[in-house]
Amino acid sequence: MSKILKKFEPLFYPKSIALIGASPTPPKWGFGITFSIITGGFKGNIYPINLREKEILGLKAYPDLADVPDEIDLVIIMIPPARVIDALRDCKRKKAKAAVIITAGYSEVGPEEKELEEELIREIEKTNMVVIGPNCMGIMCLDSNLNAFFSPATLPEGPLSMVSQSGNVGGSLMFFSELYNIGFNKVVSSGNEAVTFCEDIIEYYGEDPGTRVILAYIEGVDNGRRFFEVAKKVTRSKPIVVLKGGHTEAGGKACSSHTGALAGSDAIFDAVCRQAGVIRVGDLDEMFLIAATFIGQPLPPGNRVGIITRGGGWGVLGADACASQGLDVVALPKEAIREMNEFLPSRWSHNNPVDLAAGGGEESMLKCMEILIKSPQIDSLIQLGVGFGTMRKRMARSAQAFPQYQEVAKMMLKDSKKQDRKHADAVLKLSRKYNKPIISCSTFSLGDRAASSPTVRAFSKAGRVIYPTPLQAARALAALTRYSKYLKER
Amino acid sequence: MSKILKKFEPLFYPKSIALIGASPTPPKWGFGITFSIITGGFKGNIYPINLREKEILGLKAYPDLADVPDEIDLVIIMIPPARVIDALRDCKRKKAKAAVIITAGYSEVGPEEKELEEELIREIEKTNMVVIGPNCMGIMCLDSNLNAFFSPATLPEGPLSMVSQSGNVGGSLMFFSELYNIGFNKVVSSGNEAVTFCEDIIEYYGEDPGTRVILAYIEGVDNGRRFFEVAKKVTRSKPIVVLKGGHTEAGGKACSSHTGALAGSDAIFDAVCRQAGVIRVGDLDEMFLIAATFIGQPLPPGNRVGIITRGGGWGVLGADACASQGLDVVALPKEAIREMNEFLPSRWSHNNPVDLAAGGGEESMLKCMEILIKSPQIDSLIQLGVGFGTMRKRMARSAQAFPQYQEVAKMMLKDSKKQDRKHADAVLKLSRKYNKPIISCSTFSLGDRAASSPTVRAFSKAGRVIYPTPLQAARALAALTRYSKYLKER
Repeated sequence: MSKILKKFEPLFYPKSIALIGASPTPPKWGFGITFSIITGGFKGNIYPINLREKEILGLKAYPDLADVPDEIDLVIIMIPPARVIDALRDCKRKKAKAAVIITAGYSEVGPEEKELEEELIREIEKTNMVVIGPNCMGIMCLDSNLNAFFSPATLPEGPLSMVSQSGNVGGSLMFFSELYNIGFNKVVSSGNEAVTFCEDIIEYYGEDPGTRVILAYIEGVDNGRRFFEVAKKVTRSKPIVVLKGGHTEAGGKACSSHTGALAGSDAIFDAVCRQAGVIRVGDLDEMFLIAATFIGQPLPPGNRVGIITRGGGWGVLGADACASQGLDVVALPKEAIREMNEFLPSRWSHNNPVDLAAGGGEESMLKCMEILIKSPQIDSLIQLGVGFGTMRKRMARSAQAFPQYQEVAKMMLKDSKKQDRKHADAVLKLSRKYNKPIISCSTFSLGDRAASSPTVRAFSKAGRVIYPTPLQAARALAALTRYSKYLKER
Repeated sequence: MSKILKKFEPLFYPKSIALIGASPTPPKWGFGITFSIITGGFKGNIYPINLREKEILGLKAYPDLADVPDEIDLVIIMIPPARVIDALRDCKRKKAKAAVIITAGYSEVGPEEKELEEELIREIEKTNMVVIGPNCMGIMCLDSNLNAFFSPATLPEGPLSMVSQSGNVGGSLMFFSELYNIGFNKVVSSGNEAVTFCEDIIEYYGEDPGTRVILAYIEGVDNGRRFFEVAKKVTRSKPIVVLKGGHTEAGGKACSSHTGALAGSDAIFDAVCRQAGVIRVGDLDEMFLIAATFIGQPLPPGNRVGIITRGGGWGVLGADACASQGLDVVALPKEAIREMNEFLPSRWSHNNPVDLAAGGGEESMLKCMEILIKSPQIDSLIQLGVGFGTMRKRMARSAQAFPQYQEVAKMMLKDSKKQDRKHADAVLKLSRKYNKPIISCSTFSLGDRAASSPTVRAFSKAGRVIYPTPLQAARALAALTRYSKYLKER
């Protein structure tokens, strides 16, 4: 085990956890995080520390950390700032190995509280602990069933890992993980980053075998040079997707009262990202979708994209979206046109986007997709309006009120599910066979009914999402393409 | 009734419909549209026309339009192009008043088929009918329970109306209507626009009492001058939200093989929109969310926005998003700071965004919102992380696997629902009292569980959506603000 992996081991893979400030009263923080840890299914020992309570959520509580009859790997500190220094001293005496300081009221408040944070740093430095926070919402490691985050989540486990200087931004990204069923491995809400900085976590994720793609919400970087060097090292093997808070003057001002961070020059940060191969994004949904793209999709050899659609309007929007994101909507190779002419009805578009028009049944769609993806003149494929079964599903749903159409509806629904499953398998097979990305797009991927679709399920099992709009699809493919180019040219 | 309303009356409010090419076989178009009309609950008479079938979906079928023993208002034509001219002659003889030509294979295919379309136009001009299409997916009028659209939808009824040069783009926007529970009044898939142009439909919507906001997906405008004049007239009373397909070279090429439209210069189109007060958008979700904004929100008196948040990171992203969209994240009025200091714990941000930090319970949140919205120095409010109950709901959900926490979970859930309902009512009341927009934002508004939230329900009943990301929220508020400014300055 490397030095870095070893350093963070007690934080993410603790054998025992003490909860200083655990509480039996919702919705207090001391309740929330204790509740998350228990319901998250943590397998090690959990010790609530509380002066007044004998038992919290069914667990024996101890008045003092010193009273716990066990070694402690990880301590979660959830008490008012005035008592945190004492708690750290208790940790030192107990030889605890890691701590997460949830407590807020430090540099994010003002100059006086900044001094309090400096005192905190000095105290932490007297210990040998790895310490996260203060002013954070906790951490998660799905790999060890550890959910020490304020908002309990029923997250799928997967290869995404995140560090966020904002707990609620982290919580939002977790929501997208639930929505798209693409999972996280580890989450760190890093808060004010007294001693452990986002670049430290990124460096750890770079070596962590459970992490394949890194998400970072960053308001300010303390040591720009080190951030650059860590990022440059890590992006060699793992993509880093960054949402930068405070890229405008108004946002920058807001940062200072949030994490106390200095947002710094956006132009410099942008240059650092470009040179280090870091992918910058503009919004939360975009961030999640782009990060997810790197899990299930192979890297494209170049930026020439083929677009295939069952509807003309979607094709137009797809072409606009790709062109606006710097992708090359190449002219259709002559060979491809010749091959498609053999079986498509004459009304097809004869252009890129390939619009099957009404002539495009399931079989034609898949044949055309293979013709495009196998072409040496095409590097990636965007498929618009995936899930032919959608229309049938809507039919079935709208028939529910009519007893006389129940049979027809049932038949259509069954038919559509079967077709959905076959379609997903075929698309995944094609993408693997030619080792090129196939980006599938449909508005129907949002919302509840999507989750039960066999296409969506088969895709998410393979680490793929269906993008809700043509622009989201093009943005994701463009990010994948830029990263691929970066790796080649660096 | 005005001339325009009268002209379109038989199209949207027919007493009887004939379906030329109705079919009993899914998923044929002749089946799909017939099925949509029936399951859509149309109250008038429906006459399938089919040479071979005696009965289709339980309705008596007629071999010929002439055989129908009734007057016909609307004819839907779903037969191959070679037979459409004859069908139009049948319509003329039957004195039908309106027709929708679903049939494709005209100018979108090539020069030869363009001639076919010209012949079609000449034939239409011999009748007195209002004719939609060809190459379209149908029409809908929820106000008359008429769903003659290829993809049946269980749409909520509401004050949005749409004209789309692409049927599948129309279908996608309907999906967002279902997702956000904000309804449509009328939908027209206008296809190749042989004789009825998108500007004709927009002009009609301008006078239609059921329409309050107009959505248009446009690839090309035939008569730019008339489009400009109609748009300028209509935007005086109703906002028009336009998604323009073909704004790049690649997209423009795709247009010509879709609807045969010439995309034209994007700069000119943009200038036309600006001068006519038309709101241009960049993607499907953005289009729906911005259109919906005009239903439930009052127009802001200016562009000075107040932001309130329960989480710092969201506040930063909100400030960035507002600034990037041209909104003014004003300094917090001194009076507001003074008032908030009276009851907020000292750790609050003292800045715009107002970050309540952990000190912000439900009551504080609402008090701060009122302090902001009542200020004459603030024109609108963005509220980030709406629905305090979310965390409790997650807690409750994650407790489901633990029998011993069922009681706690149930209590929290009940509590959260109650709070959600109260919160929504209070926000709506505030917005109405001061007649300024309050834009609420939470990622949790996406997905199935959102739909059952009392906040989401109360909001959508009032014609409001909860925006899923800070950027979507800011874009919507910016569009509202620009339109408000346009109306004042025109």
